[in-house]
Amino acid sequence: MHNEAHISTAFDKDLRQIEDLVVMMGGLVEKQIEDAVEVMTTRDLELADALKASDKEVDRIEQEIGELAVRLIALRQPKAQDLRAVLAAIKVAADLERIGDYTKNIAKRTHVLAQTDPIGSSAKTIARMCNLVRQMVKDVLDAYIARNIDLADEVRARDDDVDQMNNQLFRALLTYMMENASNITPCMHLLFISKNVERMGDHTTSIAEQVHFFISGELPDDERPKADLTSTAFVTPK
Amino acid sequence: MHNEAHISTAFDKDLRQIEDLVVMMGGLVEKQIEDAVEVMTTRDLELADALKASDKEVDRIEQEIGELAVRLIALRQPKAQDLRAVLAAIKVAADLERIGDYTKNIAKRTHVLAQTDPIGSSAKTIARMCNLVRQMVKDVLDAYIARNIDLADEVRARDDDVDQMNNQLFRALLTYMMENASNITPCMHLLFISKNVERMGDHTTSIAEQVHFFISGELPDDERPKADLTSTAFVTPK
Repeated sequence: MHNEAHISTAFDKDLRQIEDLVVMMGGLVEKQIEDAVEVMTTRDLELADALKASDKEVDRIEQEIGELAVRLIALRQPKAQDLRAVLAAIKVAADLERIGDYTKNIAKRTHVLAQTDPIGSSAKTIARMCNLVRQMVKDVLDAYIARNIDLADEVRARDDDVDQMNNQLFRALLTYMMENASNITPCMHLLFISKNVERMGDHTTSIAEQVHFFISGELPDDERPKADLTSTAFVTPK
Repeated sequence: MHNEAHISTAFDKDLRQIEDLVVMMGGLVEKQIEDAVEVMTTRDLELADALKASDKEVDRIEQEIGELAVRLIALRQPKAQDLRAVLAAIKVAADLERIGDYTKNIAKRTHVLAQTDPIGSSAKTIARMCNLVRQMVKDVLDAYIARNIDLADEVRARDDDVDQMNNQLFRALLTYMMENASNITPCMHLLFISKNVERMGDHTTSIAEQVHFFISGELPDDERPKADLTSTAFVTPK
């Protein structure tokens, strides 16, 4: 039999391997968001296709993390914070995978947008929203590795900015649609892209909550108010 | 020490408890979809609010399933199909929870739709799509409990119908928007609802794939072609 200290060390080593994969996955997803920004602003369709293709690698790493995590639980039967750390890795990876999926959808829709005139500065607004989310992803992974609960909470609060930009862009896009029927198809795709970025922010928030939970054993006690108001948006034509 | 047969029985009993919870959760989600149909067709805002509120119970059961499943893995260290069965329960519960979330969003948007004129027969089309998904959820859970791989595959194939209805409704809604600017706000919400139902179908497909995998140890070998074409939809005004 191993002694207590030995078991702990072996566990830590296995956990580190998993967390390294989560960080690597996070780096890929950050790059995907960066590419989404580039695709939105330049309409570079080759980059859009490369972005779509990069999704496979992200999916593969998520699966590997899941398998290693389950093996680790079955093998070492971790308790309390150790168990939470393994479960956090699974959930963080799942959220990162979803964020990657949304960037893929942006790439797809760019093929339609490239055939239409730009709608005001909406592509730039979306690029700004993406940049906020990219920084949130970077910071929340730093919080994850450093076990920094304050940074995780701070990232979680920052999602409000993304929600507010989405709310404003939503209304603006509806008015563009009302002004000119030719704007309807591109605006519809921009509405969905904006909603995608809002969801990317939500998944980053969910990572922040996982990090908070795994460090402290408790979820953040303030229920974050849902700042996405687009489900109840009502705009009337002039 | 327990003998092999004893361990197996104890595991089976624990697994049954978890699977009972998954089925109970499935029943609640079926009811949520049923309510979404009712809300879409009658615009009953009280029912919409009750539907929104029912989400908490679904979330709670998902969390309970997750906790029991992790405890079971740590305690009994299941291998091969037994391990896959426990992991399937976690993933099926996660998909069911997402399906429930989408019905909640339908309830939210109904508050706006109730202030606007109906857009052709689109509410009925969405109700029909919801009914297809509800039957898929019912059948895939039957396949899950009966370990019936053929039924799981059959449910998975059925998602095409949902995708096709979504594609058609998408184009129809865009033309309604183009015809009359007053239609834009309600059509936008209907576009998002239709997309939500399409995603509900995707999550049901994902459950079918989990069931296939957990029974056979392999994912279905045909990659299901993505039949949602709305990300590339282009409609021009007359």
